[in-house]
Amino acid sequence: MRSVKSYACFGPGQELEPFEFEIPKPKGTQVVVRVKYCGICYSDVAMIDNEWGISSYPLVPGHEVIGEVVQLGPKVTQLKVGDTVGVGWYSASCGTCHECGEEEQQLCASTESTIVRRHGGFAERLLCEETWAVKIPKSLQTPETAPLFCGGITVFDPILINKIEAHHKVAVVGFGGLGHLAIQFLHHWGCDVTVFSRAHSKSEDASKFGADELVETHNTEELLQHTREFDLILVTSYADLEWPLYLNALRPKGTIHIVGAVPNPIPVPAFSLISGQKSIAGSALGSPKTVKKMLNFSAKHKVAAQIERFKMSEVNQAITRLRKGDVRYRVVLDADF
Amino acid sequence: MRSVKSYACFGPGQELEPFEFEIPKPKGTQVVVRVKYCGICYSDVAMIDNEWGISSYPLVPGHEVIGEVVQLGPKVTQLKVGDTVGVGWYSASCGTCHECGEEEQQLCASTESTIVRRHGGFAERLLCEETWAVKIPKSLQTPETAPLFCGGITVFDPILINKIEAHHKVAVVGFGGLGHLAIQFLHHWGCDVTVFSRAHSKSEDASKFGADELVETHNTEELLQHTREFDLILVTSYADLEWPLYLNALRPKGTIHIVGAVPNPIPVPAFSLISGQKSIAGSALGSPKTVKKMLNFSAKHKVAAQIERFKMSEVNQAITRLRKGDVRYRVVLDADF
Repeated sequence: MRSVKSYACFGPGQELEPFEFEIPKPKGTQVVVRVKYCGICYSDVAMIDNEWGISSYPLVPGHEVIGEVVQLGPKVTQLKVGDTVGVGWYSASCGTCHECGEEEQQLCASTESTIVRRHGGFAERLLCEETWAVKIPKSLQTPETAPLFCGGITVFDPILINKIEAHHKVAVVGFGGLGHLAIQFLHHWGCDVTVFSRAHSKSEDASKFGADELVETHNTEELLQHTREFDLILVTSYADLEWPLYLNALRPKGTIHIVGAVPNPIPVPAFSLISGQKSIAGSALGSPKTVKKMLNFSAKHKVAAQIERFKMSEVNQAITRLRKGDVRYRVVLDADF
Repeated sequence: MRSVKSYACFGPGQELEPFEFEIPKPKGTQVVVRVKYCGICYSDVAMIDNEWGISSYPLVPGHEVIGEVVQLGPKVTQLKVGDTVGVGWYSASCGTCHECGEEEQQLCASTESTIVRRHGGFAERLLCEETWAVKIPKSLQTPETAPLFCGGITVFDPILINKIEAHHKVAVVGFGGLGHLAIQFLHHWGCDVTVFSRAHSKSEDASKFGADELVETHNTEELLQHTREFDLILVTSYADLEWPLYLNALRPKGTIHIVGAVPNPIPVPAFSLISGQKSIAGSALGSPKTVKKMLNFSAKHKVAAQIERFKMSEVNQAITRLRKGDVRYRVVLDADF
């Protein structure tokens, strides 16, 4: 057992406070990771607020971790002490089910989240299964890489799931933490990328990240001009949309792929799927294997989050900043325990 | 110009009456097909009733045609007089767009339906583009094959679209004209097939067609027992379903694929797609290329509709029978002009 310093939340919506807890020696294939950087994701805020009803307090948030392996369980085979790794939303899966066998561990029925009934990355150290601690190429061992482990993989996996090719035309709905990474991935994938955003003020940034066009989402007139156009519409926003317009903007065989926690059920007229062989899909995160692909792709194409940096000791200030909703485009904390 | 006898409907919901019209000599790649058999589909009834607001009267329904090519346009290259062919919902497509180029003509923006602003198969003869008149293997030149050209292709195409393999577990919702063909296709595809039907009385038939299990759809208890189970749920019914239960019955990566004209928008909680990488999709019919695949598969595995036969002159009696909703499982008319 070893004492670990952290920042924890003691009740829904409360500010974080210094908190010490103990982590046991790693068992089996577990490893202990010393945290260097940790991104803040909107899911951390949702967990702080117990929005999904699954939080338990004291809650140590943080699931976009970059750190160093400092201790190994007796059965670890893939990692060694000193490796720089990243840890995202998941920290464990069963290893024996059909999905784990197919190396799609994110779909395992027994996945364990890094911050549900566990203490996450707003801490000196965390414990996780080696499967979910993915080695980071040297050029990516920077704070800008931290957000790839949740925000990044969330938008990268749909590119593979939907078998997107360079000649496809893709729209990204929402231009925040997830959206700005999606634009970069898709641009470097070779696609024509249109961004649907509430804010025209981000137009320059959109171009910088590789977008070919920016469309204002509250401008129905402008939306209506896009029909039979996109092979994929990737929804990264957390808002209800005028779904019929988006279904209409799909080409035949097109897909609306949702990764944002859209609040209300999406009313889908069967006819709008049937008539153009369309679909509505969703996914969360990705497998460790896909995380590796994402890291290699990011290293080659210099994909990285644009971040605002705070010290871990400034975590409440950082969360306040995030709640305002205009971070460009992700917050990352430096561990300064 | 040549005079053609037919049965036409002169206003929404009316009985059909004998009607003569003229068809011009086939131009370009058009062919004239002399009708031998014609299935009746629920879409014919919807068109008679102008349910979709696209009917024009006099309306000659019928889009599950088997017949003989009797006349060729000057540019026809693939068919000759005397060929036995089938014609389904579509009779023409542009031939030049991206979708036509990809041999997915059913997705062409300029498709023409056999019974929209055209006269269909309840007639001595009909005119169509040779692309949409598909040659029928000798062993399938029977009235039982007619329903394959709309009902059959509608449920066969989703098997290809969803890349279904023999080890998959599939559910078919709805056990009527489409459902009984879907069960046969999927059974011979090697899949484990569960049928969701309102009527337990059809249990014996379900086994006969190759189903492994029959579940009553109004039995919520029974439905709830199916979780994380199906790779594909093919919805052939025209009813609103308890969608959350069906989403729950999907395995990770599973798809609910809709081919039935479900009346109300389907309320899809984003989270239920996101959490298991699931999707909701739809499709209509299939390409001529896929029709050929279906016919070869049907010939090999002896897939055929179970039909009730009427003479074309008994068409009103046949439609009344169909409106009752308990046909087992499809009505086919013999042309007796």
